[in-house]
Amino acid sequence: MTTALLHAPDGAALRLPAPLALASGAQLEGVEIAYATAGTLNAERSNAVLICHALTGDQFATGTRPSDGKPGWWSRVVGPGKPVDTDRFFVLCSNVLGGCSGSTGPASAGPEGGPYGLSFPVITVSDMVAAQAALLDALGIEHLLAVIGGSMGGMQALQWAASHGDRMDAVAAIATAARHTPQNIAFHEVGRQAVMADPNWRGGRYAEDGVRPEKGLAVARMAAHVTYLSEDALNRKFGRGLQDRDAVGYGFDADFQIESYLRHQGATFVDRFDANSYLYITRAMDYFDLEDAAGGRLADAFRELKARVFVSSFTSDWLYPTSESRRVVRALSGVGAEVSFAEIESDKGHDAFLLDEPEFHRLLNGFINSTAARRNL
Amino acid sequence: MTTALLHAPDGAALRLPAPLALASGAQLEGVEIAYATAGTLNAERSNAVLICHALTGDQFATGTRPSDGKPGWWSRVVGPGKPVDTDRFFVLCSNVLGGCSGSTGPASAGPEGGPYGLSFPVITVSDMVAAQAALLDALGIEHLLAVIGGSMGGMQALQWAASHGDRMDAVAAIATAARHTPQNIAFHEVGRQAVMADPNWRGGRYAEDGVRPEKGLAVARMAAHVTYLSEDALNRKFGRGLQDRDAVGYGFDADFQIESYLRHQGATFVDRFDANSYLYITRAMDYFDLEDAAGGRLADAFRELKARVFVSSFTSDWLYPTSESRRVVRALSGVGAEVSFAEIESDKGHDAFLLDEPEFHRLLNGFINSTAARRNL
Repeated sequence: MTTALLHAPDGAALRLPAPLALASGAQLEGVEIAYATAGTLNAERSNAVLICHALTGDQFATGTRPSDGKPGWWSRVVGPGKPVDTDRFFVLCSNVLGGCSGSTGPASAGPEGGPYGLSFPVITVSDMVAAQAALLDALGIEHLLAVIGGSMGGMQALQWAASHGDRMDAVAAIATAARHTPQNIAFHEVGRQAVMADPNWRGGRYAEDGVRPEKGLAVARMAAHVTYLSEDALNRKFGRGLQDRDAVGYGFDADFQIESYLRHQGATFVDRFDANSYLYITRAMDYFDLEDAAGGRLADAFRELKARVFVSSFTSDWLYPTSESRRVVRALSGVGAEVSFAEIESDKGHDAFLLDEPEFHRLLNGFINSTAARRNL
Repeated sequence: MTTALLHAPDGAALRLPAPLALASGAQLEGVEIAYATAGTLNAERSNAVLICHALTGDQFATGTRPSDGKPGWWSRVVGPGKPVDTDRFFVLCSNVLGGCSGSTGPASAGPEGGPYGLSFPVITVSDMVAAQAALLDALGIEHLLAVIGGSMGGMQALQWAASHGDRMDAVAAIATAARHTPQNIAFHEVGRQAVMADPNWRGGRYAEDGVRPEKGLAVARMAAHVTYLSEDALNRKFGRGLQDRDAVGYGFDADFQIESYLRHQGATFVDRFDANSYLYITRAMDYFDLEDAAGGRLADAFRELKARVFVSSFTSDWLYPTSESRRVVRALSGVGAEVSFAEIESDKGHDAFLLDEPEFHRLLNGFINSTAARRNL
């Protein structure tokens, strides 16, 4: 173990020493996991916090993303003096297995040299977590102070609680659920069909000639983006406001600000995301169902859990509604876990977990700091 | 006026005698409107009820659709002994301007012989209503007992109330709104972009070679369909149930019933609907804003209204939520209109207006029958 591996604010990648045994039964050889760190691991290796990213996130939760110089996607939450304070904690975030920001995924070279494409095995959230655990093993980090994530990151946090319940002191699962609802699956399926409808997708083999299914992926992103915003947020941000015009144009240009906004979201997304990764990661989320995996009783998923848990939802998040968080809280309570729950008043919809939500930030900060205090950190 | 024109259970079409002046300022020549009737117009011509259809509906609200032998889309509501009783009332329903079931739309032959495609003028809900009014003029029906519609049909009903407030005794606006919200616009824009992303759309000129943008239109339909169902309905109908398999397939086939259902909805829709019509009709809905049209105060839209109004919403309809219906009711009350409002308890989502909802049916029946009683019908 070299210190260099544990100081990677601009990112690093590690090749897992052993094949990864996937939930599907497949074995994945030569897995690389890309990650980034912030802060310093203490001598006792007791101040490590794992941040798990959401569907379209990456390993750059804080600091600066080298590819475009933009701030990390969770800079409001993670950084010096932030709720997860990198002056105190060593923070690590890795790109998920199946992703497209350096970790092995469908765009990576497969056994035959070319990109996997659809020959990449279908993965699950538990596979993502297994890859993270193997990464931490390789880095010599046996125990985590906390695992924290929102949305799909929250699914990973819950999967950590289920699969490695004695490996962390605390778990924070934000704006998430223990299973994907049929409505969640439905919206993902719309996105996948949009990608697959693009003739440039070519059964996933678009990497061969470099012409990517940009239109299909943009439509998928647009459909998803609508679900990330609440009705209130849409009304407040856009209403029926027109874009750069005084009256509707009686045509199919983006008359309305909301149209212009969505088109922009779609157009910029295709520059930074791989279409096949989008298929694989949405599929992993759809498959996520801790209750089913535990044999039909969600509480049983958390039988081995030793950590305390913070669960948080946002009132206007209709994609991962409070009712799903309450299911998680009930299950945790059912096995006597130490769990605190907060439903945060917000009109920002699902995206609230990424935005300026002082109450959420204060509660998360209190949860992490009190966990650290118990460990005399 | 021949009786034949007023007895068209299998449908008929009428060419409007004069060009239609559109909201955009364009004039549309040679407009044909397809319609179907049920029941018999009485000698006083006082028992006519106009039914307005929704986005993907047609003129066959009741009886049998000749093209495929299926029952009319509102057979639960309209027919002999039904809430709108065709033993008592003469019911007329016309395919909207811009539609693809016989009325002039983008698939119709334009001035140069070939299909209009995108040279068809962008139309509005008020244009649809103007075409209906011209049709009724041509049929010699001066006064309506009632105008009834759900969803986009409800928008037309409200537009009738605003534009022809002395031409009917009653208006029923169901599961609708006086304006399209930014969220409504957003979902429509996703659908339009899905159609336009299909290379077979070819800027709307697909009719030239008969290869239609089926994949794009199917994705649009899938995206829309998710919004028609409530979370509860999805959980009840599908949950996380698998389709014809015992375990997930670790692939991109339709593992889940909800996926299979959506794919079926998309695949069957393209057989009966024209992609350009979908663009034009969704655009008309997005443009709908009676408040803006009335100069910024919704109540002013109804200043000339002489009819009584029944407004109804469904608790689980998140596409046209009760709050939008309440805005309509407040505006109507503000000008002293006789308005009754019912929020129907239902877990079926927006689709509830098409489904078995006895309380809604009972209330609508009471509203229509009491209106008829006032006219001594």
